[in-house]
Amino acid sequence: MPDTKKKMDEEFASLLMNAIQKNDIDAFRKEFLEVHPYDQAKFFVSQEEDIRKQIYTYLSPAEMAELFHNLDSEDQEKILHEMAPSYVAEMLAQMYADDAVDVLNELEKDQVVSYLTIMDDEAAKEIKDLLHYEEKTAGSIMTTEFVAISANKTIREAMKILKSEAPDAETIYYIYVVDDEKRLVGVLSLRDLIIADDNKLVSEVMNDRVVYVSVSEDQENVARMMMDYDFVALPVLDYQRHLLGIITVDDIMDVIEEEASEDYSKLAGVPDGEGNGYSAFSAAKKRLPWLIILLLLGMFTASLIGRFEETLNKVSILAVFIPLIAGMAGNTGTQALAIAVRGIALGESDHNSKVQLLQKEIGTGLIIGFVCGILVMLIVDVWQHNFYLGLLVGTAIFCTLTVSTMTGALIPLVMHKFKIDPAVASGPFITTLNDIISILIYFGLATLLMNYLV
Amino acid sequence: MPDTKKKMDEEFASLLMNAIQKNDIDAFRKEFLEVHPYDQAKFFVSQEEDIRKQIYTYLSPAEMAELFHNLDSEDQEKILHEMAPSYVAEMLAQMYADDAVDVLNELEKDQVVSYLTIMDDEAAKEIKDLLHYEEKTAGSIMTTEFVAISANKTIREAMKILKSEAPDAETIYYIYVVDDEKRLVGVLSLRDLIIADDNKLVSEVMNDRVVYVSVSEDQENVARMMMDYDFVALPVLDYQRHLLGIITVDDIMDVIEEEASEDYSKLAGVPDGEGNGYSAFSAAKKRLPWLIILLLLGMFTASLIGRFEETLNKVSILAVFIPLIAGMAGNTGTQALAIAVRGIALGESDHNSKVQLLQKEIGTGLIIGFVCGILVMLIVDVWQHNFYLGLLVGTAIFCTLTVSTMTGALIPLVMHKFKIDPAVASGPFITTLNDIISILIYFGLATLLMNYLV
Repeated sequence: MPDTKKKMDEEFASLLMNAIQKNDIDAFRKEFLEVHPYDQAKFFVSQEEDIRKQIYTYLSPAEMAELFHNLDSEDQEKILHEMAPSYVAEMLAQMYADDAVDVLNELEKDQVVSYLTIMDDEAAKEIKDLLHYEEKTAGSIMTTEFVAISANKTIREAMKILKSEAPDAETIYYIYVVDDEKRLVGVLSLRDLIIADDNKLVSEVMNDRVVYVSVSEDQENVARMMMDYDFVALPVLDYQRHLLGIITVDDIMDVIEEEASEDYSKLAGVPDGEGNGYSAFSAAKKRLPWLIILLLLGMFTASLIGRFEETLNKVSILAVFIPLIAGMAGNTGTQALAIAVRGIALGESDHNSKVQLLQKEIGTGLIIGFVCGILVMLIVDVWQHNFYLGLLVGTAIFCTLTVSTMTGALIPLVMHKFKIDPAVASGPFITTLNDIISILIYFGLATLLMNYLV
Repeated sequence: MPDTKKKMDEEFASLLMNAIQKNDIDAFRKEFLEVHPYDQAKFFVSQEEDIRKQIYTYLSPAEMAELFHNLDSEDQEKILHEMAPSYVAEMLAQMYADDAVDVLNELEKDQVVSYLTIMDDEAAKEIKDLLHYEEKTAGSIMTTEFVAISANKTIREAMKILKSEAPDAETIYYIYVVDDEKRLVGVLSLRDLIIADDNKLVSEVMNDRVVYVSVSEDQENVARMMMDYDFVALPVLDYQRHLLGIITVDDIMDVIEEEASEDYSKLAGVPDGEGNGYSAFSAAKKRLPWLIILLLLGMFTASLIGRFEETLNKVSILAVFIPLIAGMAGNTGTQALAIAVRGIALGESDHNSKVQLLQKEIGTGLIIGFVCGILVMLIVDVWQHNFYLGLLVGTAIFCTLTVSTMTGALIPLVMHKFKIDPAVASGPFITTLNDIISILIYFGLATLLMNYLV
């Protein structure tokens, strides 16, 4: 953030604090309402509860709604409890329906019901309609505040309608053209509208090849389409092509970040929804189930090594290279996993691309295995003055790296084939799996070469 | 993608192929130019080279420019080589300057120079100006096609200016208000402009608290601001507050995805810029340097275990638990790493949040270590009928999990303090580091408890 912005923020805060201390509502409102709601929210959330309670009395629910939308969801929940329920209901009614739904989705069911009961009927209905849609679909992120007109209007009339609806619509950059049954027949960008001759008909200027999404479409696909087409809003239709709502680009930016953050956490084996706001205890509770599964897999690996105890007794130096071999298998496996998951996310998921990806990873694994294998063989030979030990460890590295690179790529591809989100295959899981494979290869080879090692 | 869309795409493709076979330029253009450039690009890139060469002759460089912007960078490079240089230069001149710069940034320097030489002077200057800015800064992703007016115009005049500039500007959703020295003094959204009374002055309606970014700002911070403020464009200023350009939301979506994909790859230890289009050989070449560093670290781990060879000789069962302990340390370390990197990315990077995060992770590590330690102790005790061995492995798990969770969180925090991108600390690196720590703890404890183990 530029320093000038920081300075502006500080000046702003001290002016406001001054007004609050003097209880000068006018001075407060004049200053406060002039800045962007995100800056209002930043100031608001940094205050103590008693100051916040004073601020509520200065602002109408509609003004509070704009600020509230800019808080993160943890703060929203905290602050809802400080407000009078009637004030909350009025505020939610004043928010764009999709944003209100985001807030309500984080609450207990009985709380949601109680707010909707005291809300005015029209707003409550809009919100209830949106609450029905399944999470992470187009329906759940769309808003119902859009501008729709019919095709037989003139551009002049369209502009008039737009002027009257602009204050309430979430975006005015596209005007959607619908027939008498509310089916979408075209779209008109505000740019087209401004450039066009006032006397033309909407039907002459509009684009009738509208790019749209279906209401049940996954939000990740919606984001992909928005990025491909560079739109700032996309219409959402049901199966009869009725226009149900629109999805705006600000919500899509949140989706892109949310999905990326989810993939990132999954790769690291961190469970969904562990934010930083949680306590150590709840963090541990979330991570433990997954760790215990990995622990049991690790115990299985241990029992595998246990079967080679005799081999180990004879050549205890073998133990020295276990972490090296298992570790390298984990590293290459995780790399291949990430490449495959990303490839699938970028849409390279048809059969041919998958086969190509797998072939490439096998090739990569062979080259990496060969180079690392030779290197390890030389190092071990020089260090331990034992040619056969070097040969064993080098060969083991060659085999494990090849196999684990292939496994890392194969597992997400197979998961995608069976319609499981490939991002679920985490690094720790692949690593633990490759531990098992590498141990089997290493001790298998060691048992074969036993006569040369002793 | 909805099935209806797929069907539309197929119909579209067959109509076009028909026109191409008959060499019917009018039919082709009528159909082709009606769809979104992204769909044009999809059709275009799926054709053979000879068909593509036929299509060039149907389209003006300006029409080609829109299509070209929608190709991915690998395809862009391939297709540039099929075109006549003069056609390329004209096409680049017709693109938005920031998009042309994106294309040129992927080319060899002498190619760039040759295109710029044959381009018309005005366009070449605009592009050259943008090429100066450092990669991944606001300057490198901004465009210079925006609408700027002066504050003493009326709303009616502003609307007229907008109408005349709308066809060329990249976004018309904000009109920027500048003084005589081109310094930014305010902003007017198109919504404000449409709602406002025609006779008012721009200075009366505009917002003078403009949120802006500095030209040298990192693109990740620009994306963060765009998401915080929900704008569809942000102005870019130099240090004297001169308006240099604007950044539009479509470019920011790409930045969000690019940065997320980079963080994801780094977590998995995959080097920058390894796409799926590369061969196995070049993929191996990119991954090997990093793997060889990890291999040498692994050798160091091996040499550490070598120092405990005597201990291992006496109690060879100890080797059985090496992968379990090292693996669990890697798993918890990676989890803590991901949480810390994400926390920093989400802006929780002031000193207090860092201390809190670290405290939380230490607490989490202690709880996880305790639960897993007890579990392991019981399993080993039952499996091996050896209380002291169970005690040793359990205690080792407790200590390593605590320490490695702390390390996983501490390293990115320290890196961030020293202004190194914390995402550089990859899962494989943390895992290998934690291998070393866990081996030291495990064999250290084993040596202490030796009398009870034999």
